[in-house]
Amino acid sequence: MAKSIILLGATGSIGVQTADIIREHPEDFSLTGFAAGKNMAVTRDFIREFHPEIVCVQNDDDAVSLRNEFPGVHVVSGDSGLIETATYEADVLVNAVLGSVGLKPTLEAIKLGRTVAIANKETLVTAGHLVMQSAKEYGATILPVDSEHSALFQSLNGEKREQASRLILTASGGSFRDSTRDDLKNVTVKEALNHPNWSMGAKITIDSATMVNKGLEVIEAHVLFDFDYNDIDVLLHRESIIHSMVEFQDTSVMAQLGTPDMRVPIQYALTYPDRLPRPEAKRLNLAEIGKLHFQEMDYDRFRALKMAFEAGRAGGTMTTVLNAANEQAVAMFLNEEITFLQIEELIERAMHSHQVVSAPDLETILYVDAETRKSVKNMLK
Amino acid sequence: MAKSIILLGATGSIGVQTADIIREHPEDFSLTGFAAGKNMAVTRDFIREFHPEIVCVQNDDDAVSLRNEFPGVHVVSGDSGLIETATYEADVLVNAVLGSVGLKPTLEAIKLGRTVAIANKETLVTAGHLVMQSAKEYGATILPVDSEHSALFQSLNGEKREQASRLILTASGGSFRDSTRDDLKNVTVKEALNHPNWSMGAKITIDSATMVNKGLEVIEAHVLFDFDYNDIDVLLHRESIIHSMVEFQDTSVMAQLGTPDMRVPIQYALTYPDRLPRPEAKRLNLAEIGKLHFQEMDYDRFRALKMAFEAGRAGGTMTTVLNAANEQAVAMFLNEEITFLQIEELIERAMHSHQVVSAPDLETILYVDAETRKSVKNMLK
Repeated sequence: MAKSIILLGATGSIGVQTADIIREHPEDFSLTGFAAGKNMAVTRDFIREFHPEIVCVQNDDDAVSLRNEFPGVHVVSGDSGLIETATYEADVLVNAVLGSVGLKPTLEAIKLGRTVAIANKETLVTAGHLVMQSAKEYGATILPVDSEHSALFQSLNGEKREQASRLILTASGGSFRDSTRDDLKNVTVKEALNHPNWSMGAKITIDSATMVNKGLEVIEAHVLFDFDYNDIDVLLHRESIIHSMVEFQDTSVMAQLGTPDMRVPIQYALTYPDRLPRPEAKRLNLAEIGKLHFQEMDYDRFRALKMAFEAGRAGGTMTTVLNAANEQAVAMFLNEEITFLQIEELIERAMHSHQVVSAPDLETILYVDAETRKSVKNMLK
Repeated sequence: MAKSIILLGATGSIGVQTADIIREHPEDFSLTGFAAGKNMAVTRDFIREFHPEIVCVQNDDDAVSLRNEFPGVHVVSGDSGLIETATYEADVLVNAVLGSVGLKPTLEAIKLGRTVAIANKETLVTAGHLVMQSAKEYGATILPVDSEHSALFQSLNGEKREQASRLILTASGGSFRDSTRDDLKNVTVKEALNHPNWSMGAKITIDSATMVNKGLEVIEAHVLFDFDYNDIDVLLHRESIIHSMVEFQDTSVMAQLGTPDMRVPIQYALTYPDRLPRPEAKRLNLAEIGKLHFQEMDYDRFRALKMAFEAGRAGGTMTTVLNAANEQAVAMFLNEEITFLQIEELIERAMHSHQVVSAPDLETILYVDAETRKSVKNMLK
């Protein structure tokens, strides 16, 4: 029996690659529904190709057009439509929307005890405690999609959590790993968008260059696997071949390796606990690669990563501030309103001026999120 | 409850390190019995320290002395004593004897459905089919002790065998990894005994220099994990940090890493499926190591490895010939009767003059073993 899949964020980078996996395995997966934002060309293509039962778009007008074109498809729109899609009956919900809009739909699906593959960092970073608590309460399964967390998840497979002692997240270092802080003063948007190993969306490529991305991953790892921040290390590994590692109390280290191809962890989330063949995919050839490099993380050079650890340790609403300030600052950088280094500066100022609320509920999180964005937007005025 | 352990080959390199593990965890393990060959000093020390119920030594005279000294201990000797010790009631049998003498005791313990941790390569290389067949028939568990096989075993943990596509054994390359075949012509015993990464016994250090050791490991991997020889790769990895890897059909590669410390895989065999702390042990620090190197295996340079694949593919008694010819040739090299490269030559000649017997029984294996040794001994006369 094919697994039925609901895909939120279908037209983004992770969404399109999830569609690739479904396309590669027509016997194993069916796309029962998806949510797609504003990209109507891809939305139409996906409807024609995958014959979903439910489709969500952002705008009501687009929904009306789609209803006329595809009378057999249940078309919904907006925030309520996103929740309706997320909670539509299916085997796996893949949450690959960008930003905090992914939060509510995930929590609603969790309340139904669903299996949720989370590629939406913000959900875990801002509301990790609510997600994991609800997942436990309602018996939902949370699966990571990110390559690093998938690597940690795979390395913990078959092991006992309490016998694992340390998570080691690898970091390529992003576009500017060889630059000094002085070099970073005048980098352009174009330079920042040129990532050495992975092909990703603009926001996450900038996050990778600032290392905010790695910082968010550290917080996600803390949430997903319940490790203290003191037991989470970040290791510079420029080749992105070892996707992450887990050290156990016997000093043994388990690692997951592979070519930099997001479809591997995406597929693993869809097939877990099984693995399906990917006969067309490039196999890892370490002899061809020759050398793997490792280097200690320099937290003075990568200040955003240090701030992420600080936000994580502060807990409560502080991770929401980190994330919201970053989203706002990156948008401003991409819009050429601020310099590259000002991304860090704005995050830092937002964090310093915030009073932490512990164990916040969803309303508080969304309020802090909105307030932080507003404040960062006006910070330089 | 502490796990009771029977240790065959207690005074060898693996045996002494197994004793270290038992010593480190007095709450978790007890040494119920051991077999110790001729080293009476260590045997006496171990009896005083671990208070075993049964002890086996090679010579009857030594047994008589021990009985007088330790009236509370059941002391046995010789081949029959080794079997009595191997089959003595306990939770785990660790077979760390050197050479084919380990074969019969292992098979007898398997017939009792015991858990057998095998550090004795010859058992799997020469009688792998008997061992695995009996283990299946009598419900015995076979656990690898070798660092490479332990790494493969750990990488397969929690996974489905049929979803794994390839085993990748790493090889440091031994003492002469940077030497050409021409350089090898006149190497001395002392040079050959100087292994770059691991501290091991003389026989296995030579086997590591010739790569016969890696060849035996390939055959063991084939036997233990049931992979076709075409799906077993050997990768040169000078640092011996990645101890081996498993590639799955989704192209994901799982690996086990660690400092070169045999006590980690030994302990894992004793604690499986759990892991116990080793608070005093050195933890892996990849940033300190900096680089890991990988290189394709050159089968013309390492001819013994090629021969091992050939012996494995020929199957039947051919792996016994490989092993016996090698044991004899290494003894002759250590005794300065032959040159380093003549080890390969004698193995090759023994293999070429052998007619394979398929699915041999124990008697045939032992007969071929003895005949091969005899023939190799006289080959240069």
